[in-house]
Amino acid sequence: MEQTERLARLDALQKKLYAYACAENSLYLDAVTVAPKNTAEGRGVALGILAGEHQKLLTDPETKRLLDELAAASGSLDALHKREVELLRRESGKLARIPADEYMAYTELTNRASDVWHKAKENDDFASFCPVLQELVDYNRKFAGYYDAAKAPYDALLNEYERGVDTRQLDAFFETLRDGIVPLVRAISEKPPVDDRFLHLEYPVERQKAFADYIMEVMGIDRGHCGLGETEHPFTLEFNNKDVRITTHYDLHNVASSMYSVLHEGGHALYELGIRDDLQYTCLAGGVSMGVHESQSRFYENLIGRSRAFLEAIYPRVQAFFPEQLGGVSAEQFYRAVNKVEPSLIRTESDELTYCLHIMVRYEIEKQLIGGTLRAEEVPAEWARLYREYLGVEVPNDREGCLQDSHWSGGSFGYFPSYALGNAYGAQMLRRMEQAFDVFGQVAKGDLSGVTGWLREHVHQYGQLLEPADVVRNACGTLDPQVYLDYLTRKYTELYAL
Amino acid sequence: MEQTERLARLDALQKKLYAYACAENSLYLDAVTVAPKNTAEGRGVALGILAGEHQKLLTDPETKRLLDELAAASGSLDALHKREVELLRRESGKLARIPADEYMAYTELTNRASDVWHKAKENDDFASFCPVLQELVDYNRKFAGYYDAAKAPYDALLNEYERGVDTRQLDAFFETLRDGIVPLVRAISEKPPVDDRFLHLEYPVERQKAFADYIMEVMGIDRGHCGLGETEHPFTLEFNNKDVRITTHYDLHNVASSMYSVLHEGGHALYELGIRDDLQYTCLAGGVSMGVHESQSRFYENLIGRSRAFLEAIYPRVQAFFPEQLGGVSAEQFYRAVNKVEPSLIRTESDELTYCLHIMVRYEIEKQLIGGTLRAEEVPAEWARLYREYLGVEVPNDREGCLQDSHWSGGSFGYFPSYALGNAYGAQMLRRMEQAFDVFGQVAKGDLSGVTGWLREHVHQYGQLLEPADVVRNACGTLDPQVYLDYLTRKYTELYAL
Repeated sequence: MEQTERLARLDALQKKLYAYACAENSLYLDAVTVAPKNTAEGRGVALGILAGEHQKLLTDPETKRLLDELAAASGSLDALHKREVELLRRESGKLARIPADEYMAYTELTNRASDVWHKAKENDDFASFCPVLQELVDYNRKFAGYYDAAKAPYDALLNEYERGVDTRQLDAFFETLRDGIVPLVRAISEKPPVDDRFLHLEYPVERQKAFADYIMEVMGIDRGHCGLGETEHPFTLEFNNKDVRITTHYDLHNVASSMYSVLHEGGHALYELGIRDDLQYTCLAGGVSMGVHESQSRFYENLIGRSRAFLEAIYPRVQAFFPEQLGGVSAEQFYRAVNKVEPSLIRTESDELTYCLHIMVRYEIEKQLIGGTLRAEEVPAEWARLYREYLGVEVPNDREGCLQDSHWSGGSFGYFPSYALGNAYGAQMLRRMEQAFDVFGQVAKGDLSGVTGWLREHVHQYGQLLEPADVVRNACGTLDPQVYLDYLTRKYTELYAL
Repeated sequence: MEQTERLARLDALQKKLYAYACAENSLYLDAVTVAPKNTAEGRGVALGILAGEHQKLLTDPETKRLLDELAAASGSLDALHKREVELLRRESGKLARIPADEYMAYTELTNRASDVWHKAKENDDFASFCPVLQELVDYNRKFAGYYDAAKAPYDALLNEYERGVDTRQLDAFFETLRDGIVPLVRAISEKPPVDDRFLHLEYPVERQKAFADYIMEVMGIDRGHCGLGETEHPFTLEFNNKDVRITTHYDLHNVASSMYSVLHEGGHALYELGIRDDLQYTCLAGGVSMGVHESQSRFYENLIGRSRAFLEAIYPRVQAFFPEQLGGVSAEQFYRAVNKVEPSLIRTESDELTYCLHIMVRYEIEKQLIGGTLRAEEVPAEWARLYREYLGVEVPNDREGCLQDSHWSGGSFGYFPSYALGNAYGAQMLRRMEQAFDVFGQVAKGDLSGVTGWLREHVHQYGQLLEPADVVRNACGTLDPQVYLDYLTRKYTELYAL
């Protein structure tokens, strides 16, 4: 086969993978937004077939031959094609190593597990989820070997979400954070609590919707390319760099909930919207890793969105949206309220300072589960022990304890650390950015274009052209938790006059 | 290959076709409901690939071999498999006869034509659409030969939308209708006009939405399996018999617009929801033809929805939804207003009596275009001439004339007659139904379960298991325009005291 013909086939292969991904995305989006409630069965049939075709295409012997031939002649490939072949071979090889029957059984298990978990959470009934959790753990321990037999199982799983990261690195990373954050939280607990009751007055949903539009406008998100929908759990979904959707959830008695979820998902969206055109419809489109993605969402949510400069800039407009609720509240009071520190039970509702402690609990438990030193039935006790130790709170039940997150029921072990890594990457990026220009001088004028421009140049544009570790290194050097810790220490020492 | 293995492959083939159809439906639904406005390009790439895969699967030599082998051994097939093989071979054979380059060029043309038509309509600029229309006509004349070389081109096209119907039959059908309807319309035009101004007061959209929910409830549509959305042009879209979506459009100053579009699309939905479970995920799922589908939608919209019995039954609730607008209006006044006859320019806004005249104009023009006796540039003059002759109205411009419908720009020639056939089938079904039970006695109690039950038993359940002509024959005998004409004559003679 001619090289030109091979490249045409490579292009066609990736366009097909793109089309399948679009189809799956679209059906998923429909399912969580407008689909009538009793329609899951037929959609499941379609999604199962599309996922199967998707996988078949990647593991097809003809695909493998094409990729091998291209790899053999990789000297003559340009950088994009070379990277495409590298990523596709990695993915195809991984899928090929998983025996088809195990893959199918696991897919069936995760579908079932999701139902079991939903019910278990609703009924605060860990016992019903426990055997399924152990099954999920066992499959993941086995699959870890297919992903990378040379690594310890949990390292192999971590690598799936944040390539290049391992337990050795994360142990040190989390230890530094824990040693810095826990004393801060203790010190704050001795201070008088911040009054944030005005955030919990009645905020009519229609006004909140208009406010969400305003937040997207401030972020500079082009609504012609980015939709805003409504779902129980906010998320971001990308079709390509010209078509991204974010969702939020409006809580009548919590104006900060939707505001910060829009800032968070908007950060994810800006990443996807900022990826280069020439990577579209190839496997290089899309954000490079969970950690880097979270660095972007949490950059807008916390580093910018919870900064004094940003809040002072937008506050007159915030008051104009909610004159009755916030007319008598100052920008400084608002700033303090949205930065209130309060050790709590639920990760997704936690403040910026304690957030990483929630992640550490999960990291410790996952490490032991996948390492084989903890059984599923021991999880609730271990969860309670760690929440007591790290956050100083007592876990009253499993619903607000180890059943709160969906990740494990979906088969994701090794995903949680990405959230903490994202926080740390973001702080390092901010430090670099501040060396380049007066970040908060611009933000104080309500102008985020410099921030987004910098992130686009140093992070967004590359998509998956580089490895996550290289994206991070180019943007802000090697991972160093001290930078994030310094940021937190400075911010909260000032806020709480520690 | 064993027959068992062949049947398993037949099943897998159809499930794949179903999955592709779901994917295309989902992307389309997204496009017309929530997708941001500048996202068409990437969706077009995905849809193009999915349509190509869909077509490739049907025309694949392996598919052909499988279907041929099954057909050869059809004696051993059960009725369902036999019919599946018959329909798939028909479709696959047809696609295989269209040269791939012509198919691609035509797909490209229809995409382009849709844009050109939209702009031409907006600017009332037939000249810009004219050459594209002629191209579309020329392709359809050629494709007609691929569909069925033994038939005259327009007959071959008609057959695509309503298998078994031809020009000879339709000429007689429309002549009977025209000879009966035109004098009725003339007689009505000499009567004092009905006052329907109260239908055009301000009807708040939120109330209309609640009213639409009520209409669906009266129709007995299970909302767990049928969604109601909002689009510029109402439509029905089915994923399977447990997942159907309808849409409507709310006009602030026309309460009847959304009410009757919900009754219409709800009729389509009940058809899809009533198809047998054992036909799902096969090519036998889905309504059998455009004509039969329209017979169901127009059954609920007109035969039931515009009947005195139905309106009297629901009118207290209608008034309760809109007390300010309708408090002083009687059920009889409402009945007369929604049945007001008024020859007009726009098909989709026309009344029940003149509707078929709009169809006849299009039928006459299509017949000549595809027959080669009329050129695209002659369409506006012919349109004006026929509207004057059939409806007695002057066409002031092409926007409200031959540019009003999207069908031709989408490449659909031979589709329009289905609407008229649907009206006629419906009237025949109603007559049969009345022989079986007291239809309007039940309807007068607001109970449509008998109606839907009868239609489900005689029409819905079969999906595409039978040919459209057989569905019609079983349900109500052979096509006979006189039944529909009798219905119209009786209704409007009474209404207008002719």
